[in-house]
Amino acid sequence: MNEFRLDRDRAARTGTSEAVLCEPKSTAQIDAIVAHAASLGDRLLLTRLGPRKFSRLSVPVREALDYDAPTRTAILGGLPAPRGAGRVAIVCGGTSDMPVAGEAARALAFAGETATLVVDVGVAGLWRLMERLDDIRGHRVVIAVAGMEGALFSVLAGLVPCAVIAVPTSVGYGVAEGGRTALHAALASCASGLAVVNIDNGFGAAHAALRILGEAPPVAPGHA
Amino acid sequence: MNEFRLDRDRAARTGTSEAVLCEPKSTAQIDAIVAHAASLGDRLLLTRLGPRKFSRLSVPVREALDYDAPTRTAILGGLPAPRGAGRVAIVCGGTSDMPVAGEAARALAFAGETATLVVDVGVAGLWRLMERLDDIRGHRVVIAVAGMEGALFSVLAGLVPCAVIAVPTSVGYGVAEGGRTALHAALASCASGLAVVNIDNGFGAAHAALRILGEAPPVAPGHA
Amino acid sequence: MNEFRLDRDRAARTGTSEAVLCEPKSTAQIDAIVAHAASLGDRLLLTRLGPRKFSRLSVPVREALDYDAPTRTAILGGLPAPRGAGRVAIVCGGTSDMPVAGEAARALAFAGETATLVVDVGVAGLWRLMERLDDIRGHRVVIAVAGMEGALFSVLAGLVPCAVIAVPTSVGYGVAEGGRTALHAALASCASGLAVVNIDNGFGAAHAALRILGEAPPVAPGHA
Amino acid sequence: MNEFRLDRDRAARTGTSEAVLCEPKSTAQIDAIVAHAASLGDRLLLTRLGPRKFSRLSVPVREALDYDAPTRTAILGGLPAPRGAGRVAIVCGGTSDMPVAGEAARALAFAGETATLVVDVGVAGLWRLMERLDDIRGHRVVIAVAGMEGALFSVLAGLVPCAVIAVPTSVGYGVAEGGRTALHAALASCASGLAVVNIDNGFGAAHAALRILGEAPPVAPGHA
Amino acid sequence: MNEFRLDRDRAARTGTSEAVLCEPKSTAQIDAIVAHAASLGDRLLLTRLGPRKFSRLSVPVREALDYDAPTRTAILGGLPAPRGAGRVAIVCGGTSDMPVAGEAARALAFAGETATLVVDVGVAGLWRLMERLDDIRGHRVVIAVAGMEGALFSVLAGLVPCAVIAVPTSVGYGVAEGGRTALHAALASCASGLAVVNIDNGFGAAHAALRILGEAPPVAPGHA
Amino acid sequence: MNEFRLDRDRAARTGTSEAVLCEPKSTAQIDAIVAHAASLGDRLLLTRLGPRKFSRLSVPVREALDYDAPTRTAILGGLPAPRGAGRVAIVCGGTSDMPVAGEAARALAFAGETATLVVDVGVAGLWRLMERLDDIRGHRVVIAVAGMEGALFSVLAGLVPCAVIAVPTSVGYGVAEGGRTALHAALASCASGLAVVNIDNGFGAAHAALRILGEAPPVAPGHA
Amino acid sequence: MNEFRLDRDRAARTGTSEAVLCEPKSTAQIDAIVAHAASLGDRLLLTRLGPRKFSRLSVPVREALDYDAPTRTAILGGLPAPRGAGRVAIVCGGTSDMPVAGEAARALAFAGETATLVVDVGVAGLWRLMERLDDIRGHRVVIAVAGMEGALFSVLAGLVPCAVIAVPTSVGYGVAEGGRTALHAALASCASGLAVVNIDNGFGAAHAALRILGEAPPVAPGHA
Amino acid sequence: MNEFRLDRDRAARTGTSEAVLCEPKSTAQIDAIVAHAASLGDRLLLTRLGPRKFSRLSVPVREALDYDAPTRTAILGGLPAPRGAGRVAIVCGGTSDMPVAGEAARALAFAGETATLVVDVGVAGLWRLMERLDDIRGHRVVIAVAGMEGALFSVLAGLVPCAVIAVPTSVGYGVAEGGRTALHAALASCASGLAVVNIDNGFGAAHAALRILGEAPPVAPGHA
Repeated sequence: MNEFRLDRDRAARTGTSEAVLCEPKSTAQIDAIVAHAASLGDRLLLTRLGPRKFSRLSVPVREALDYDAPTRTAILGGLPAPRGAGRVAIVCGGTSDMPVAGEAARALAFAGETATLVVDVGVAGLWRLMERLDDIRGHRVVIAVAGMEGALFSVLAGLVPCAVIAVPTSVGYGVAEGGRTALHAALASCASGLAVVNIDNGFGAAHAALRILGEAPPVAPGHA
Repeated sequence: MNEFRLDRDRAARTGTSEAVLCEPKSTAQIDAIVAHAASLGDRLLLTRLGPRKFSRLSVPVREALDYDAPTRTAILGGLPAPRGAGRVAIVCGGTSDMPVAGEAARALAFAGETATLVVDVGVAGLWRLMERLDDIRGHRVVIAVAGMEGALFSVLAGLVPCAVIAVPTSVGYGVAEGGRTALHAALASCASGLAVVNIDNGFGAAHAALRILGEAPPVAPGHA
Repeated sequence: MNEFRLDRDRAARTGTSEAVLCEPKSTAQIDAIVAHAASLGDRLLLTRLGPRKFSRLSVPVREALDYDAPTRTAILGGLPAPRGAGRVAIVCGGTSDMPVAGEAARALAFAGETATLVVDVGVAGLWRLMERLDDIRGHRVVIAVAGMEGALFSVLAGLVPCAVIAVPTSVGYGVAEGGRTALHAALASCASGLAVVNIDNGFGAAHAALRILGEAPPVAPGHA
Repeated sequence: MNEFRLDRDRAARTGTSEAVLCEPKSTAQIDAIVAHAASLGDRLLLTRLGPRKFSRLSVPVREALDYDAPTRTAILGGLPAPRGAGRVAIVCGGTSDMPVAGEAARALAFAGETATLVVDVGVAGLWRLMERLDDIRGHRVVIAVAGMEGALFSVLAGLVPCAVIAVPTSVGYGVAEGGRTALHAALASCASGLAVVNIDNGFGAAHAALRILGEAPPVAPGHA
Repeated sequence: MNEFRLDRDRAARTGTSEAVLCEPKSTAQIDAIVAHAASLGDRLLLTRLGPRKFSRLSVPVREALDYDAPTRTAILGGLPAPRGAGRVAIVCGGTSDMPVAGEAARALAFAGETATLVVDVGVAGLWRLMERLDDIRGHRVVIAVAGMEGALFSVLAGLVPCAVIAVPTSVGYGVAEGGRTALHAALASCASGLAVVNIDNGFGAAHAALRILGEAPPVAPGHA
Repeated sequence: MNEFRLDRDRAARTGTSEAVLCEPKSTAQIDAIVAHAASLGDRLLLTRLGPRKFSRLSVPVREALDYDAPTRTAILGGLPAPRGAGRVAIVCGGTSDMPVAGEAARALAFAGETATLVVDVGVAGLWRLMERLDDIRGHRVVIAVAGMEGALFSVLAGLVPCAVIAVPTSVGYGVAEGGRTALHAALASCASGLAVVNIDNGFGAAHAALRILGEAPPVAPGHA
Repeated sequence: MNEFRLDRDRAARTGTSEAVLCEPKSTAQIDAIVAHAASLGDRLLLTRLGPRKFSRLSVPVREALDYDAPTRTAILGGLPAPRGAGRVAIVCGGTSDMPVAGEAARALAFAGETATLVVDVGVAGLWRLMERLDDIRGHRVVIAVAGMEGALFSVLAGLVPCAVIAVPTSVGYGVAEGGRTALHAALASCASGLAVVNIDNGFGAAHAALRILGEAPPVAPGHA
Repeated sequence: MNEFRLDRDRAARTGTSEAVLCEPKSTAQIDAIVAHAASLGDRLLLTRLGPRKFSRLSVPVREALDYDAPTRTAILGGLPAPRGAGRVAIVCGGTSDMPVAGEAARALAFAGETATLVVDVGVAGLWRLMERLDDIRGHRVVIAVAGMEGALFSVLAGLVPCAVIAVPTSVGYGVAEGGRTALHAALASCASGLAVVNIDNGFGAAHAALRILGEAPPVAPGHA
C-alpha cells in the first residue's frame, strides 16, 4: 500500500520543500520517501536520523544524501545559495547542546539562511556570555539552546531586545532528564517575551526564525 | 523594609516601562509599587489582578488605574498614541479564551500596538476559521489563543506563513484542566515553526510579538 | 505448572476466538499458547509481537503463523471470508502512524471486516484531508490514527457525523514522547463525541468498531 | 466587542443545535449566548453550569432555561419528542457518579433519545450488576459511568458484546483524586473494545452514542 | 573498601536470613555478598537477578545458587522443610503476570510456606475466577497479582473476606506502562481493606503474608 | 429516580453493615441513605463527612448520627460491644496525622475492635518511638500513620515483626502536598513486607486489619 | 486523648526549642501546644500560620504570641539576644518571594542570627544583582529565594564561592504553578554545589544555615 | 567549529580547575576537551563517564586519565596533597548506593579533602547506624546517600546537629524508579535543615560540602 504522500502542491504554492522526521519511520519508509522525492527532483531535509538507521538505508539513498552524524540531519538536493549572514544567532549553553544547535543551523542553511554560532556560554561562568553580548545583539533573531536548568534563557532574554527563541534540550539527569526542567524554565521565565519550541527541536526553532524573517514556507515536518 | 525596586534605569535605557504580575503579591505590595511609580510619573502595566484584589487596593491607587476586569489588567499612566494597526492579529478559539486574548491585546495597546481580534474560530467548525483566513494572513504576527486540545494551533500554523505565537489557555476539564494538554499540543505540533509561551500568558505573547516587530523593550514582568 | 487457560467456553458461546498480547510474554509462553490453540484447531490473533521475539519462537509455531512485521501481528488459522468492505475507514495522520493503523486493519480482517485505508492526511496540509472527505464520510465507523499533537482527531470529528474512534500513537519526541499528548488531545477535543482507546492500541479500536457494528465477540486480549 | 459566534450554518446543515460549556465562561458571556439563541428560536444545551453561576444569570435567561442542578445542565427551547427508549443504557457504579450519569441522560434527551438508567452496580458487590445484566444486554450502546478505580468498565465490557462507552468520573481521593485512575483503568482495560471519553464528560459519551446510532449532529460543545 | 555488611546479628535474633535485591548491584558486589554468606553457612534469597547478570557471576557463586530464570530469583543454602500448604493463595490475572507471582511463591518457599497458585483468572472472562472461588476462599491470605487496569483486585476483594495483598505488575503499554495504573487501581479500590505493595514486588507481598501469618522475620531486602 | 441501593443481602450473608463515603455525595443523597438504613434498623459508618456538610443534613438524620468532627466520621446505630483490646495498635507520626488515625480507630470500634493509640512518635525524635516499642510489639497488627516523608513506616517495619499497614497522609507542603511522597515512601520501603493503603485512608487500614484478624466482613465503602 | 508530645528532653539536651508546622493542625491542637509550652516556659516558633487561623486561636494564646502576618510566623517567648549580623545573607528574586524570605529571617532571628536581606534582584534585570554582589560575597551562607524559573539560583551560585541554599517558591502560574519548576531548576543547576530545600521552606533553609554555622539544634519541626 | 571553551580565567581567579559532565557528550568532544586541558597542564575531573564510553576514547586520552569504573569518574593531572581527613563523612544506605557515594569521595579527593566512608547503614537495620553514630557526629559535614524511600535522611538528620547533605539515588523500582521517591523524601523530611542535591549527584554534594568548609572554588560542571 502507498504509505506516504508528499505535499507537492504545497511546495508549488510556497516555493519550498518538505522536512521528514525520521525517528519514528522504518528504513523502508525513509528509503521510499527519499527515492520518490529524488525522482521528482525535490529537495528534502531529514531530521533525527541516527547513524545506525542511516547506515541501514539503501546505497543509492545514502549516496544521494548529505548526511551529518552529530546533528542527525541529512539533506537531499543540496543547499541553496546563502542570502548572507547576520540575521540569526544561535547561542548555545554548553558543548552537550551542540547537536541541537547544529540541527537548527542545518535547517536554516537548507533555507538559505546562514546563522552565527556562539558556543559554550553557560550562565555558570557569566563572563563568557557577557563577552559575546554585543555580537549577539546585532542579530534580528536569537535562538538560545540550553539544557539542565535552562537559566541561559532568562539571562539572555533580559539582555537583548530582539526576538528570542528558546530550545530546551534533553541534556541533564535526575530531575532534568528528558528536558522538562529546561522547557519549564523557558516557559516560566521572569524575562518576558521568550518564544519556546519543543525539547530538542532545533528544526522547529529554525522554522520559527524563518517565519519571523518573512522567509518561512508553510512546511510541516515529520508526518510526510 | 523596602520590598521592591523598580528597574528605572532600565526604563531610561529603553524608553519603556515595567509590568507587574499581581497574583502572588499582597495588596500592600501592589499599593506601594503603584504609588511609587505614580510619584515618579512612570507608566505601568499590571497583569493577573483579579476583581477582588483590585477592590481591596487603596482608593487613590484604584483611581489612578485604568482597570479592565475581564482581562484582569490595569494600566497606570494611560496609553501611548497607537502606531497604526494591521501588524498583529489575535485569533481566539472560543469565547472562554477571551480573557487571555484580551490580556494580550491590552499589553500590545500599552506599547502602542493595535491588534486585530478574530474570535470564536475553533476547529470544530472549521469553516469559521476559513472565512477569516485571508484577513489573518495579512498580518506579520499571529497570536493564537486556545485551550482544551489546542488543535487550532496546528491548523492555523499550517495555513499561514507568518510568525505564529501560541498561547495555550487553562480552559478545559479532566485531562485538559490547567492547560497542559493545550500547551503540549502547541509544542508538539506537526505544523512546524510555532512559537509557544506559558499557559494563559497573554502578556508574554504580546511581548514576544513586540520583540519580533522590533518594538520590544527588554522589560521583565512579575518580579518587580 | 500450567500457566495459561484459553477461554474456550467463551469462544463457544460467541463463535469467535481469542487475542494474545505478546509483548509481556516470554517466547516459551507464546509457543505454548499457539501450540495449544493449534492442537484444538482454534484461530488466534497475536499482537505486539516484535520481529526479534517472533524469530525466537519455535519453528513449527513460526510456520503456523501468518506474520506481518510492520504491524507486529500474527494470525493462526487464517482469515475468514470478508463480509464486504465499506463500513470502517482507517484514517492515518502520517507515515509514522502506519504500524498502528495496520494493526487495526489486521484485527478487522481477522474478524472478516475489510477496512478502507486513508493515509498521510495530517492537518499541517489540510487539503490532503479535504480531498478525501467525501470518501471517508461514506463509512459507518472512522478509526483515526495520529501521534504528536493529535489535531487530526478534532478536525476530523468536526467534519463527519459518524462514529469516530481515536487511536493516539506514541509517535513524537519531547513533550509528545510516549503518546500522552495525542491521547489527551483526543480526550479533550473541542469536537464532541470522540471515542478514544489507549495509546498505540489499534487492536482495541478495531474491537470497538466491531462492537459498534454489532459484530463484536466479547473477547479480551492480552491476559490469555 | 462581539465575543461569540453561534455555528448557525452548521445547525442549518445538520438540523440540530449547539452545546455550550459554561464553566470557563463568565455570566455575561452566558447571558449573551442564551439571549442570542433565544432571539433566533434556537434550542441550546448548556453543560457544567453550577447552581451559583446559574443564580447569577439574568432573570429572563434564567426563566428561559430548564435548569437541573444535580447534573448542572440547562436546556433552552425544550425537549424534542422522544424516539422511543431501549437503545442506550447508562450503567452507574455508585451514587456519587449520578451527576455525570445524569448529564449523559439529559444530553441524550436533548437529542430525543431516552436512556435506561441502571444505578449503584459497583463491582464490590458483584451480584448487583449480575442481576441487571440481561436488561443491560438488550441495548445497542452501554454508557458505563464510574470513578475511583473504575473496575466496572472491565467487568461490564467482559460481559456484554455491544458498544461500551466508559465515562471515568472524578469521584475519589488520594491517588484517585481528579479521575485519572479511573480514566487510565478504562484505557488499559483487559476487556477489549472499550471506547473512552474525558473525565466527567457525560455529554461527550451521549454524543458518541448518538454518532454510533447514526443520530449524531456534528456539534462541538464548549467553544461557542 | 568493604562495601556491604550482612545483618547477621539480626538473623541471629530472628532465626532467619537475608534477602538481596540484585538489580542495582554490580556482579562484583553480588559475588562478594554470596561468597561471604556461603562462607558463614547462611541462607540467602536473591531477587531481580536477570539471566544476563546471573551468567556473569563467578562460577563457584553460580554453582552455589539454585537459580530460576523466569522469576529472576536465586536461593543459596536450599529450602527449609515446608510447613504444609493451604494458608496462602497466589491468584494471577494473566500469563504475563507469572514471573511476579513466581517471585512471591519462591519467597514463600524460602520461608517454608507452600502457596497455592491460581492462574489466568483475569476479569475479562469472569467465569474463570468464579470457578476457583471456593478454593481461594479457603486460604488465610490471598496474594492477587495483576497488571494493566488491575480490576482483578477489586473483584476479588469484593468476593473473599480474608486478607488480600495486591501486587500490581508493570504489564501493559500506553497509560499502563510501568504499572502505575494497576497500582492506583489497587489503592483506590471500591472494595475496601486491600493491602498493596510496590509494583512487581512479589517478594514484598510474600513477606507481608508471612507477617500476617506470624511467621515473618524482620528482614529488609535490597540494601544488604 | 432511586439513586442508591444498599447491599442488604450482602449484610445478611456476612452479619455486618455498610460504609458510606460522603465527600462526593450531595447532602440529599446522604440524607436519603441514612434515613433508609435507619428505617431498616441497619448500622452504618459514614466517612469523610466534613462539619459543613454534616451541618446541612436534615435534623432527624443529624440526630440519629453519632458524629465526630475531627475524624469526619459518623455512626448510625451505635457501637457493638468491644471484643477486648490489644490486637491492633495505631502508631501516629505527628499531631497533624491524628484525624486519619482517628478515622481508623472509629472504623475499628464500629466493628467491635478497640485499638491502642500511640501518638507523636515521628522519627525526627527517634527516642519517642523507642520508648513505646515494647508496647507496640505486643499487638498482632500495627497501623502506622504518617505524612511528609513517611520515614516512620520504614523505621517501624524494621523494628517489629508483626503485620504493618501503612497509611500515608496528605500532611505536608511543596513536594509532599497531597501525600504522594509519603505514599511512595511506604511502597518503596527498604524494610520489607509493609502493606499500604490509599492516602488518608484510615478506614481502609482498619478494614485491612479486620481481614487479617479474620473479623472482616466483605464490605465495600463509598459507592453505596 | 493526648494528641501531642513536645520533645522536651531533646530541648534539654540541646539547649533549644521546638518549631510547630501549623497548616495541617486544627486551632484546638495549636491552642493546646502553645498553652502547654507556655506553662513550661518554653520558647516556640510557629510556621505557616495564616491570618485566618491565627484569628481563631484562643485569646490568651494570641496574646502570648508575637505574630507576623506576611511571613505567617509566630513566636512564643521572645527572641534571644542576637549574636551579631553578617554571617547569613538572604537574597530574594522578587517582591512576591518576600513572605518566604521573611520566614527564613524570622527563623534565624529565633535562633539569635541576624540576616542581611537583599531584595528584588531577579535576573531579568541583571545589573540589580551585580550592584549588590560584593555585599553578598561577604557572608558565610547565602539563602537564595526565587520562584518562577529560578534562574537566580544558577547565576548567584556561579558568582559566589560560599555556601548557597536555594529556596524555590510557589510563585508563578502555568507550568510554574506550585513551585516545581523553580525546585527542579535549583536541583539541576549548571552551577554546582547548590544545596536545596523544599518549596517555600524558608524555615528549613534557616535551619540548614544554622547547621552550617555550627549553631543548629537538632530540632525537627512540624510533627510536634 | 570550536565547540567548547574552558573557563580558564575563572580557574585563574580561583586557583582551581573544571569538572566535565561526560554523559551527554560525544567521545570526540571528550577527547578534545581532555587533550586541550592536558596541553595547558590543567587538572580536570570527569563525571558520569561509563566504561563503554571510556573505552572508546583515544589512547593518549585514556592513558592520561586516572579512571575508576564503579564511580564512572576520571581524573586528569592527579590528586593534590590531602588536607587531612575528618571534616566530611559520607554515609551510605546500601551497597547499591556505593557508586554515587564513591563519586562524592572522588570529587572531594580531587579538591584535597579526604572523606570518611560509612557504608551499609540502612534504616531497616537501625542498630547498624546507631553503632556508627558517634563516629559520624565528629565531622563538620555529613553527606547522606540513599535510594528507595530515603528514610535514612530523616533518621540521620534527627540524630546529628551538623550540616547534612542528602544525595538521593536512583536505586529502586516501581514507584522508586529514577529516584524521585528518595528525592522527595529528602525535601519533605520531618527532620529540618536537610540540604538536598539532584538525584545521583555525588559530585554536587561534594561541591556543596566544599562551599560549607570554605574550600569551594566557583566551578560549574557539565557545560564545559
